[in-house]
Formats: sequence, C-alpha cells, structure tokens
Amino acid sequence: MPGQVTLQLESNVATLTLDNDGKLNAIDSVMWQSLRAHMTALNDDPALRCVILRGAGDKAFAAGGDIEEFPHVRGTVDQALTYHDEWVAAALDGIRACPVPTVAAIEGACIGGGLEIAGCCDLRIAGRSARFGAPINRLGFSMYPGEMAGLLELVGPAVLLEVLLEGRILGADEALAKGLLTRVVDDGEAITEADASARRIASGAPLVARWHKQWVHRLTRTEALTDEEKRSAFAFLDTDDYREGMAAFFAKRSPEFKGR
Amino acid sequence: MPGQVTLQLESNVATLTLDNDGKLNAIDSVMWQSLRAHMTALNDDPALRCVILRGAGDKAFAAGGDIEEFPHVRGTVDQALTYHDEWVAAALDGIRACPVPTVAAIEGACIGGGLEIAGCCDLRIAGRSARFGAPINRLGFSMYPGEMAGLLELVGPAVLLEVLLEGRILGADEALAKGLLTRVVDDGEAITEADASARRIASGAPLVARWHKQWVHRLTRTEALTDEEKRSAFAFLDTDDYREGMAAFFAKRSPEFKGR
Amino acid sequence: MPGQVTLQLESNVATLTLDNDGKLNAIDSVMWQSLRAHMTALNDDPALRCVILRGAGDKAFAAGGDIEEFPHVRGTVDQALTYHDEWVAAALDGIRACPVPTVAAIEGACIGGGLEIAGCCDLRIAGRSARFGAPINRLGFSMYPGEMAGLLELVGPAVLLEVLLEGRILGADEALAKGLLTRVVDDGEAITEADASARRIASGAPLVARWHKQWVHRLTRTEALTDEEKRSAFAFLDTDDYREGMAAFFAKRSPEFKGR
Repeated sequence: MPGQVTLQLESNVATLTLDNDGKLNAIDSVMWQSLRAHMTALNDDPALRCVILRGAGDKAFAAGGDIEEFPHVRGTVDQALTYHDEWVAAALDGIRACPVPTVAAIEGACIGGGLEIAGCCDLRIAGRSARFGAPINRLGFSMYPGEMAGLLELVGPAVLLEVLLEGRILGADEALAKGLLTRVVDDGEAITEADASARRIASGAPLVARWHKQWVHRLTRTEALTDEEKRSAFAFLDTDDYREGMAAFFAKRSPEFKGR
Repeated sequence: MPGQVTLQLESNVATLTLDNDGKLNAIDSVMWQSLRAHMTALNDDPALRCVILRGAGDKAFAAGGDIEEFPHVRGTVDQALTYHDEWVAAALDGIRACPVPTVAAIEGACIGGGLEIAGCCDLRIAGRSARFGAPINRLGFSMYPGEMAGLLELVGPAVLLEVLLEGRILGADEALAKGLLTRVVDDGEAITEADASARRIASGAPLVARWHKQWVHRLTRTEALTDEEKRSAFAFLDTDDYREGMAAFFAKRSPEFKGR
Repeated sequence: MPGQVTLQLESNVATLTLDNDGKLNAIDSVMWQSLRAHMTALNDDPALRCVILRGAGDKAFAAGGDIEEFPHVRGTVDQALTYHDEWVAAALDGIRACPVPTVAAIEGACIGGGLEIAGCCDLRIAGRSARFGAPINRLGFSMYPGEMAGLLELVGPAVLLEVLLEGRILGADEALAKGLLTRVVDDGEAITEADASARRIASGAPLVARWHKQWVHRLTRTEALTDEEKRSAFAFLDTDDYREGMAAFFAKRSPEFKGR
C-alpha cells in the first residue's frame, strides 16, 4: 500500500495524518504533493479554525523523506528542483502560510522531512520518547535551503547547525530545551494535548487567531507599518465576536464566538 | 481613586510603580500616558543610571489594560489609534528607547499590557508564583502590532504566537524556560533582586551601560557600521571613568565611577 | 614566556590552543593576530574537516583580553581601531567565516574575549564548573560592536545585554539555559566531548558539512534565493560521496566518505 496524507475535518479543526505503513510514515513524493494540495485547500477555507498534523500510529510522526525512491525521483538537478522546491518546500511553505494555528502532535521518530514539517507548525507537542534529528550528512547530501526556513526561524542558526553538522538524534527533553518543541507530555499523550490545545485555540475568537498570525508574520519583515496597516489592525471593532467578547467579559460569562 | 504611575528617584535609580488599587494594577489610559511622559523625561536625564518598573503591592505587576474603560476610550478606529498607537505603543517604545538599563520586578499577575511592558525592559526578574499571558483571544480583539515589538524581539515569533494563539497562562518557571524572563526568585524577592541588579549595574561605568545598549540596538539593524561609527565606539578612551577603571584594575581595588 | 596560539593538525581536524601561561590564557595582541592568521590559513584548506578551539591546561579557555598591555597598544582611537577591528574582530570574523564546523571546548574561565571566541564557534561544549561573562563595565570601556556580532546572533539582544549590563559571571548550567552553550559535561570532559563531536562531524560527508554552513549563513540574509543558487544546492548529485552515502544506506552499512 502506498503512502498517503489523509484529512479529517471535524468542528472546523482539520487533522492531517502522515501515513506510510511499515516505513515509519516516511514521506514519499506523492505524500509531499498531497500535503501541498491539502494545505492549499485548507488555507482557502474561511471556516477553518485549526490544523493538527500527526503521524499514523504511535511509532512515528515521520521518519524522514522516503529515501528508497530517491534514485528514481531526483537523479538530476531538474528532478531535484521539482522534488525539493515544487513539492517539499512548497508543502512546507503551505504550512507556514496557513492562516489558522497549526499544531504538530509528535510520537516517536520525527526525523529529516518530519522535523521540517514540525518546524513549520505554530506549536509542537511531543511524547517524552519522541526523537528528533536530520542525519543526512551520513547520506551524502545537504538539506535543501528552501526546506530550512521554518527550522531556522524557530531555533536560529546555532541550533539548526548543531543538528545538521553532528547529525545527532535528540530526545524530547533536549529538543524542548533547545526551542525545537513547545511542550513535552507523557508518551501517547501528544495527540490528547494537541486536541486540548486546539480546544484552547477554538475557545478564542477565530478571526483574532488569524489576525495574530498575520501580524506576527508581518512584523518579521522590517518595513515600518503604514498608516493604512495600523488602521486595519482595528478591524475587530466591527465584528460580532468583539462585541460578544466584551459583553461576556462584563457579564463574567464565557463568550461564544461565531468567527465574524 | 484613579490609577497612577508614580516615580521615585534615588541615587540616580528611578523606580516607576504601576498603581491601580483594587484592579491588580490594570493600566488605564491615564496611566499609559503617564508612563509615556515619565519615560520621555527620564530618557532625557543624563544623570540617570537605571530604571526599575514594578507594580504596587505584591499581588500584581499589572493585570493588563483596564478593560472597563474600553467601551468609552476606543470605540472607533480613530480612538483606537490614539489609545494603542499614541498612548500604549508610544509608552512601550519609550521603555525600549531608554538609554539606561531597565529592570522589571514582577510579583503576581503580569498579563496583557503588563507583559508588554515587561517585555520591553532589559531584564525581567519574577517571583516564582508570578504568572504570564495575554488571553485577549477570549475578549475578541487582537494585540496591536505596535505593542508586539518588544515581545517579538525578546522571544521570537514561535513563543509569542504560542502565548497569543492558546491564550494560556504560564507560570514563572515555564516563562523562564521560554525566554520570557531573565531570572526567577522566591516570592516576594523580585524587588530585592531588582535592587541588587540595579546595584550591579550602578557599580559599572554609567556611560559604558549606555554605550552597550546603544551598540546592541544598532547591531540589530543590518547596515554595516560606518568608519565614523567604528571610531565613535572608542569614545571611552577620553573619559575619566576609563582611566579610573584601568587604574583600579592595576591597583587591584574597586573603581569609583563618575559617569563622565 | 609570551602567549601563543598553537595549531595541531591530525586527520584533517585542526586544534587551536589559546596558551598564555600564568594568565589564564588571556589573549594578547600577538595571540589575536596569530588566531587571525591561523583562521585565514585553515579557511583555505580544502581538506580540513573540523576546527576545535580550546585553552591550554584546564583552568581556563581564556580569561579575556590581556588587559596589562592595553595602556601600550590601544591608547588612541587609531590604535584602538587597529587592535579591536583589524586584530580582534578580524580574528572573530575568521572563525565565523570558517567553512567547516568549529567546536569550542571550554574548561574554567571563559570571559570577555574568550566568550567572544566561543560565541563565534558552531558548537560550545563546557565543563560544569566553567564560568562565563564580560564584566568590562567595571573596567570603564565598552565591548567593540564588531566583537559582538557572534554573541548577538547566538543569544539575541536580551541575553547579550543581560551579560553586558550586569557584568555578572554565569555558571555553565545557567549559560546553557540561556543558549550560550551547546552542552555541558563533567569537569575535565569538555575536550573529550569536543573530540567526540568532531568524530560525529567527520563521520558525515565533508562537503555536506560545508554546504550546511554555507546555506544556513546564506539564509540569515534576507534576499530570496536566485534560481542559480537553488540549482547549486544540488551540487551533491555529482559527488562520489553522495553515491557512497546512498549505496551504504541501501546496503545497510556505514558509508566511507572521501570529501569529493
């Protein structure tokens, strides 16, 4: 059975599952293209509130790219450009561009391409025995620069180079201390905590989550905000959810947001 | 009694106290303008050596902006621009622009606008039970981008987004591990340690502290240093304090700096 | 006996030793120029695989610049420019520009110029009793901006300013938590672990290590990658080591890389 990326959509929370049975969910080229397509579609869904990414089963998030197909799918520079830029980097960029919060639920191996995917999510929640790394220096090739961007923004050049130069596998506690993870939970609890995180996110106003992502991303660019951008930061004033949030605050009750 | 920001000046160390009794020092619009005015005045004081920011009492640094006045003071985009850009962001920018070291002493609640203020200080010292967050997603509005800059520079996009998207309250140890704090001390000891930090700072040459802040801020801009800037980095050679520092070093005694 | 920087080259791993006996390896102007010259030569060696920097003995990595010569070697702005820009900053830039992985093995004092050197290495491995800081505020002069770049990229403005403004000495565990170190080992084991790290690095394909450093450094610049740069990221396809890496992977054996 070939690998696949499956989508489950429930209460406006999407769960994408990396699934490559018997290969620790290693991501093959069809899966990368499927992940890219899923993200393109999800990123256009105005009702979406949160995306959870996980691996099938509890042995791995994803053990890396599916190396067995490399001789066939990226033997030339042109093939490699298609594979790494149009499929892998584009899928990763699709995750980074996601307008709603993204949460990686990680059990077991989170290696190479799996680590790249996790590094593009907003939150990374891992079971204590999960392990992290990108030992491709032993395979004789370098990580494609277009695949490094998420990890570089997340942990900076020093930790990324540590991971790439030594090719060492890190445990979850060390990965947490180095900023690669948001939090560590007991084994088997990563998806439970990711669901709890999605509920925390969903209990807030949906547009506010989108605005927070939009503004934080905007501020990582150096140009000063224009007057028009500053005014647009107050678009919330015209929303039902702002009125509901304030009304609930003054009435000391929980708000019920509608996403408009 | 309305809220206020009080200034105490002793041995060239300024202490600014956020004080809004019965409201966990929630910062109202008058307090934001007062904070801005205090910073403008302090930033022009050539004798100033250090600024400590704290909350009145031991229950809170500041529990956030004073939400009760929001319906009155920021109902329109123009009002919101005045409130968030001219008052809040300008007060925060005044802290970031402070030419001398700034230390936040944090006990209890450090939420929303309180967290924004702490994030603009050079050092953040907190009691172990202090708590941190910005759960405004439940109020239906987003943090003004102009108020994010200090936190974004401090902890980067991943931690800032974690705080904003989940709206979770973090304890001091977790906040420390995530880079939101400089150090954690026993409850009730934050101001004691902030005073000790101010003494450490004051035992150094005052102009050197100003130069260190100036150069680190300069280097966060990407343009290469000009020859003139490079030469100006040696302005210390012409100061009494440099001669005193070297003389004390060779005589194996403590230096006595004058700030000139 | 004057201070010196000695070079030992073994199996394409260079070890540079800061050696100033009786002065905790304080780095004098001759040593800075020697360090710069060594880095210039090493950076041109296509066979080089790794550089380890260490202090002689087990009392210090380096306790700082050799302050005793300051009155003679940097009394004027022109002298200071030569000393700090042409000698110190150029030596540090030589370490940062090194095309192969650099590892600092740190026991004992790692202060001032010693901390600057360590901050320019890719990995920093320290014994548990090592200590870190830059208390030059008590000497009445400021760190030269050209010497701050490595530390600023490593830990960001907040931690760098904490170190400079308080002038406090940090233990290894605190330095690790603040991102100043890659890992902490038992006292006396820093060089052992640095050697183990060099072996991990050397077990990977040498060109891959160089490419990883090149691309991470490239991505810290903001301009988008050109098409030509993207294509050049697949130079590995033409190397014997890539073929060896893939062959070894499929044969489930260890690869033997040649660096070509």
